[in-house]
Amino acid sequence: MNLLLLTSDDFVSDSLVKLQGRQLQHVLGVHQAKVGDTLRVGLVNDRMGEGIITGLSADSLEMEVSLTEQPPEALPLTVLLALPRPKMLKRSLQHLTALGVKRIVLMNSYRVEKSFWQSPWLSEEKIHEQLVLGLEQARDTILPEVVQEKRFKPFVEDRLPAMVEGKRGLVAHPVGGNACPHQISDEVVLAIGPEGGFIPYEVEKLEEAGFERIHLGSRILRVETAVTAITSKLYD
Amino acid sequence: MNLLLLTSDDFVSDSLVKLQGRQLQHVLGVHQAKVGDTLRVGLVNDRMGEGIITGLSADSLEMEVSLTEQPPEALPLTVLLALPRPKMLKRSLQHLTALGVKRIVLMNSYRVEKSFWQSPWLSEEKIHEQLVLGLEQARDTILPEVVQEKRFKPFVEDRLPAMVEGKRGLVAHPVGGNACPHQISDEVVLAIGPEGGFIPYEVEKLEEAGFERIHLGSRILRVETAVTAITSKLYD
Repeated sequence: MNLLLLTSDDFVSDSLVKLQGRQLQHVLGVHQAKVGDTLRVGLVNDRMGEGIITGLSADSLEMEVSLTEQPPEALPLTVLLALPRPKMLKRSLQHLTALGVKRIVLMNSYRVEKSFWQSPWLSEEKIHEQLVLGLEQARDTILPEVVQEKRFKPFVEDRLPAMVEGKRGLVAHPVGGNACPHQISDEVVLAIGPEGGFIPYEVEKLEEAGFERIHLGSRILRVETAVTAITSKLYD
Repeated sequence: MNLLLLTSDDFVSDSLVKLQGRQLQHVLGVHQAKVGDTLRVGLVNDRMGEGIITGLSADSLEMEVSLTEQPPEALPLTVLLALPRPKMLKRSLQHLTALGVKRIVLMNSYRVEKSFWQSPWLSEEKIHEQLVLGLEQARDTILPEVVQEKRFKPFVEDRLPAMVEGKRGLVAHPVGGNACPHQISDEVVLAIGPEGGFIPYEVEKLEEAGFERIHLGSRILRVETAVTAITSKLYD
């Protein structure tokens, strides 16, 4: 954790913060903080800054907080992710959040196992936990929006065209496209398939919605690696 | 697993392969293979191709194998990785192998916890397992070489200069350098620090050995994410 992410509930006055629970345990355990120490903090969906610890006990921490910095710029990127298996979902959400993606759509695809949609990791609370971990890792405060689209066709036909309008749609697919471009300045909507990839019908439907195919060479990467690789190529 | 990695011990004749153990379990469990199926296979440090299953029982599998393709090209990249904690070491080795890195140096740094060097995951056998997983994921056969350098100064002063000669040395460091370059054609030796980064003394020693600093912007990425991000920017 490189930043302690606070919510407005943590503030007992304009600049005084009182912590308990997970965050307190972390500050005590990992940072081995003591009174007088300065921690990097941020207010969720707001500014970042520093907090000076003014009081500390086993079950509560008080901090004088000053929030003066803007969070880092977001990537102009929406990621459509065919729902991965739970373990990879967790890591992918953390990676995407840490990289600065602010809009994530978890979508269905033929090769997504139906049971994945029943995963407890899809609850709002569990997704929120992964996003917070990503923000605290990267030193950011702006929570990504995560949408779940459990049916491929209505999503791609009815809602995707508006989402991609005025942007560049890219679908990662091993055959038939160009190599992933580097350092572009376009806003992008990027679709990443499940293990085994989108089926041809799905790629065609995405192409009908205006997407172009891109590939990463002959190596096959795991979803979480591919997500980071493509994002890193596209932007500085 | 997108490729079944074979060793010469698996061959009972020029083209006949007999499998037992982990690989058999995987072929049975994940691929749900049956007689007549074709699997993608490769011989370690050699060519890749296909195998047709000619015999299958609960404890053995026979395959007619034809190896006709060269493995994908390696990246012209050596990665020096300050030894990460065991869980991240495993994932980083898999990522680097899948991305096509063929030379990895696990090195010491002030912020590497001493206990990490006692990890059972540093045994030759355990490292080999991670490399094989990375190759099987990416469809490659060429095992990376992994070297362990437990002392920073003798490594950087005595062995690193020869390693970086004629190549471009880059050290990932959040301050004082340029943004990570994209799509270069140089051979690179890339140094990535531990959580918390290299200390200033270490960055100076790397600079003395000819390294230049590069950064990934203000976001702080985990080692495994940073490794994938930098590699993806540097090469097509």
